[in-house]
Amino acid sequence: MSETLLSARNLAFELYEVLDAEALTQRPRFAEHNRETFDAALNTARTIAEKYFAPHNRKGDEHEPRYENGEALLIPEVKPAVDAFLEAGFLNATRDFEAGGMQLPTLLSQACFAHFQAANAGTTAYPFLTMGAANLIESFGSDEQKRLFLQPMIEGRFFGTMALTEPHAGSSLADIRTRAEPAADGSYRLRGNKIFISGGDHPLSENIVHMVLAKLPDAPPGVKGISLFIVPKFLVNADGSLGPRNDVLLAGLFHKMGWRGTTSTALNFGDNGQCVGYLVGKPHQGLACMFQMMNEARIGVGMGAVMLGYAGYLYSLDYARQRPQGRLPDNKDPATAAVPIISHTDVKRMLLTQKAYVEGAFDLGLYTARLFDETQSGETEVQRQQAHELLDLLTPIVKSWPSEFCLKANELAIQILGGHGYTREYPVEQYYRDNRLNPIHEGTHGIQSLDLLGRKLAQNGGAGLKQLVRLIAGTCEQARAFASLDHLRTPLEQLQIRLQSVTLGLLGDLAQGQVNLALANSALYLKAFGHCVIGWRWLQQAIHAEQGLALGNPADHDFYQGKLQAARYFLTWEVPGCHNELALLEARDDTCLSMRDEWF
Amino acid sequence: MSETLLSARNLAFELYEVLDAEALTQRPRFAEHNRETFDAALNTARTIAEKYFAPHNRKGDEHEPRYENGEALLIPEVKPAVDAFLEAGFLNATRDFEAGGMQLPTLLSQACFAHFQAANAGTTAYPFLTMGAANLIESFGSDEQKRLFLQPMIEGRFFGTMALTEPHAGSSLADIRTRAEPAADGSYRLRGNKIFISGGDHPLSENIVHMVLAKLPDAPPGVKGISLFIVPKFLVNADGSLGPRNDVLLAGLFHKMGWRGTTSTALNFGDNGQCVGYLVGKPHQGLACMFQMMNEARIGVGMGAVMLGYAGYLYSLDYARQRPQGRLPDNKDPATAAVPIISHTDVKRMLLTQKAYVEGAFDLGLYTARLFDETQSGETEVQRQQAHELLDLLTPIVKSWPSEFCLKANELAIQILGGHGYTREYPVEQYYRDNRLNPIHEGTHGIQSLDLLGRKLAQNGGAGLKQLVRLIAGTCEQARAFASLDHLRTPLEQLQIRLQSVTLGLLGDLAQGQVNLALANSALYLKAFGHCVIGWRWLQQAIHAEQGLALGNPADHDFYQGKLQAARYFLTWEVPGCHNELALLEARDDTCLSMRDEWF
Repeated sequence: MSETLLSARNLAFELYEVLDAEALTQRPRFAEHNRETFDAALNTARTIAEKYFAPHNRKGDEHEPRYENGEALLIPEVKPAVDAFLEAGFLNATRDFEAGGMQLPTLLSQACFAHFQAANAGTTAYPFLTMGAANLIESFGSDEQKRLFLQPMIEGRFFGTMALTEPHAGSSLADIRTRAEPAADGSYRLRGNKIFISGGDHPLSENIVHMVLAKLPDAPPGVKGISLFIVPKFLVNADGSLGPRNDVLLAGLFHKMGWRGTTSTALNFGDNGQCVGYLVGKPHQGLACMFQMMNEARIGVGMGAVMLGYAGYLYSLDYARQRPQGRLPDNKDPATAAVPIISHTDVKRMLLTQKAYVEGAFDLGLYTARLFDETQSGETEVQRQQAHELLDLLTPIVKSWPSEFCLKANELAIQILGGHGYTREYPVEQYYRDNRLNPIHEGTHGIQSLDLLGRKLAQNGGAGLKQLVRLIAGTCEQARAFASLDHLRTPLEQLQIRLQSVTLGLLGDLAQGQVNLALANSALYLKAFGHCVIGWRWLQQAIHAEQGLALGNPADHDFYQGKLQAARYFLTWEVPGCHNELALLEARDDTCLSMRDEWF
Repeated sequence: MSETLLSARNLAFELYEVLDAEALTQRPRFAEHNRETFDAALNTARTIAEKYFAPHNRKGDEHEPRYENGEALLIPEVKPAVDAFLEAGFLNATRDFEAGGMQLPTLLSQACFAHFQAANAGTTAYPFLTMGAANLIESFGSDEQKRLFLQPMIEGRFFGTMALTEPHAGSSLADIRTRAEPAADGSYRLRGNKIFISGGDHPLSENIVHMVLAKLPDAPPGVKGISLFIVPKFLVNADGSLGPRNDVLLAGLFHKMGWRGTTSTALNFGDNGQCVGYLVGKPHQGLACMFQMMNEARIGVGMGAVMLGYAGYLYSLDYARQRPQGRLPDNKDPATAAVPIISHTDVKRMLLTQKAYVEGAFDLGLYTARLFDETQSGETEVQRQQAHELLDLLTPIVKSWPSEFCLKANELAIQILGGHGYTREYPVEQYYRDNRLNPIHEGTHGIQSLDLLGRKLAQNGGAGLKQLVRLIAGTCEQARAFASLDHLRTPLEQLQIRLQSVTLGLLGDLAQGQVNLALANSALYLKAFGHCVIGWRWLQQAIHAEQGLALGNPADHDFYQGKLQAARYFLTWEVPGCHNELALLEARDDTCLSMRDEWF
């Protein structure tokens, strides 16, 4: 098998044809970069992912972390992998050169990171969580906190976690009960229990920095009373040396369906009343801090879902090419040789569906990473603001769409391998199990749908939505130059026009306080909106494929034909199906809303 | 939790309201039965399933069979469970009284069996496979074979397997290579390798009777050259006592994603040239024998998929009722108490979807079991023949629809439990993993779609299809008596009319030899046809619910309202979506057919 993590040709298509990554090198921040430095970083990522991450992906699944004497133990392969990742600088890929970073665009950082996500979701989670925690401190921490906690994280000596969820509250952060009492020295004493804390314990780093949500004594009720704290596993002395163990207890490990390489922990803070924490940012502003860095994290989660889908797609594609079985329906002669199963139309359907889902979501993930760069290094304040608005709108999509549809891709990969796919002797069933987490963590699917419909659409007077409509119209306009794309453009336009009308209607209902009915079918809305976005991205890819074909390079012919066929699949098979969702939304259907507990 | 396996009220609704099981007791064969004897059997099944099967469901998953010294070892809980099943007589539920059976209708036997399937798919597979093997010998074996092999199976001393799949051939039985050479004594010597043989070894019985497909030396090529053989693990002497070990080697165990309680084995037949087998039925008629008993087996597989979905539905329903979390969208006051998550509309959507899938498929499974009874005990030859034709047509649906949609139900059950659902501390993730086998074994989803479109529709001059059309029209006619059902009937009629037109078009294409294009989108056809069938069954259920409501029993009010709401969900949310599939079929869309290997 030539490629197992992702298609390098497709990655180059995205970076250099669709998203014009090279244009970023015109900006002062990225002036020292060029396509060669980008490719060098990508090659390093692929090499390390293949050499250190992929080989123990199954082993990490089979030998999940063990709880022993209050510590979580991992298989020995994890640390060398994470160390190689750190040494190559990927933890700080986007940081300034002077802070020890590579000063890469987020677009490139995400593309590099994608290789690790495809190779080994479980091991990759440790640096991923550390990056998130470090970004939080970088954005909101004091200078002292940066010196004591961020700097060792940048150096790879401390790792990080996000500690939000509590047993009784789940997604409902308004109801968290962890308390933080001020202490005489300006620090706080925390008390409470957190669950599902990924990377909450492990032997990979000198220290673990938990970013903990908790409530101060004077906290107003609900989400407006949540504050953010640094709670290290080991206290850190003023000179940066490690002090005694903090009062954070590893209460136990969760045993998951998949993603088993990552410890999922129950942590008790302050069982002995001695849990020291440090307030990050202002009191009661903890959730706002979390959300400000959530965009990047949710792109990361979405990309994780994409890459598990991608790995399964490539594996099943290779299998379908190698495996001879059966004959085509019009051949009844059993004396003829069996054909590779990729010749069977239904297998092609399952591969084409996977390709459409995976490459569509991959494009969206990188597109939003590019948008993130625009929010940071866009040339004008207006451009940065616009990028921010659009990114806010697309965040629930880039998190949820891959989580749903690249999971479906994994299901199809299993099906292509048949009985073999169902065994743990092949990797595809693990991809499914690993990916099943993604519609749950970092905001469930249901929460994403409410975030989109109940919050993001109307944000800033609908500025993000207006931009998206303009962008889709622009892509459709561009597509008109190619008569061959008419049959792809038309279904997108039809979906978009009707979706726009549904959207205005629902926003009107919300504005008039019809909240419960307007939000009742948010799942349908999420599906239709997501398909519209991915359909748009596929039309954009198809335009670039037509442009590429026009160059007439024979080596690229098949690649572009494949792009056009996958675009055709998505826009003519999947997009028209969304009119069913839109009809139900138009009717303000209340089948689910009016269902009663006692009727089940 | 009051009920964990299935809803007794729903089962009674199916048996005594929808399917009129009591009418069967008018037939001579079932004259000694009545509702009380039926219910007694069902209660026994539930009791044994709850007491012996359910408690080790997780343990069987965690401690999968071990290979040791050429044998497969199981956890100790399996044998007492299987023994209790045998002692209660469920292996022979449908057999004649005089053969030691209960002489129950298949409808009741399936309903009893459903409890075991919900409680523990892994353990239940052993008697299930034995029933299939026994039925084969009963239908096609010689008197001597019945005496030596069937009788001990009926007595529960010998277990059975189906040994079809070979490593190189997979689903393509035409290409099997296992050979059977005639020996001087009238028996045969087999040589070949089989994989994925469920129950291929275990310590539960004195002997294991493998039903093996192999080719005779003079076999014509392809499926017309396949013969069926009995190959026992231990040879059996003429007096019925066990002889020496046969030359059947347990080459290894497969390690599966789920369904781990059942051994999945690789078996080598005749490594030492000494593998004794006995021809069952006529030479080269093996596949026909297999298919004749396949109807019943495929109902069983479909019901297995239903019951895993059912168990997950009931668990997630109970969880949603117990778990307080969050507030409704129009309540912004965090000081108010959290509501049970069943109050959230999106959770109701996930429960209602599960209910629609699970109870719709449960109805179809029992309906086809009832049809099976008609094929056996129908009053006239014409009735029996008609039942056979309809059952043949519905078999790919009853096998594939639950495998796809009750698997989706399991995915939703996980989602309702959120992070908890993803852990192995809760049962729902195992239900998904167990159920993931069902679209693969006993004929993959793709094979079912080709069986339906390429074979079953046109069989007997389309007699089964004509009956189905008549039955759906009859249900719609019946529904016209209830104005309240108009909005459910209309989408079914619209789907059915368009499906009928698509069907005639595709059959015309097939008749004209346009085989590859006509079959290219068989997966779309299977979806639309399956939804039409389930939509029909839901309308039928809705009629009975309206009739039940009219009786005015307050204790039943909620139950019938739930039925009507689930019918509404399925017919107004799901059925209209099939027009997308039908439009693609009408257009003879060739997106998948025209995709090329080199374009991926």
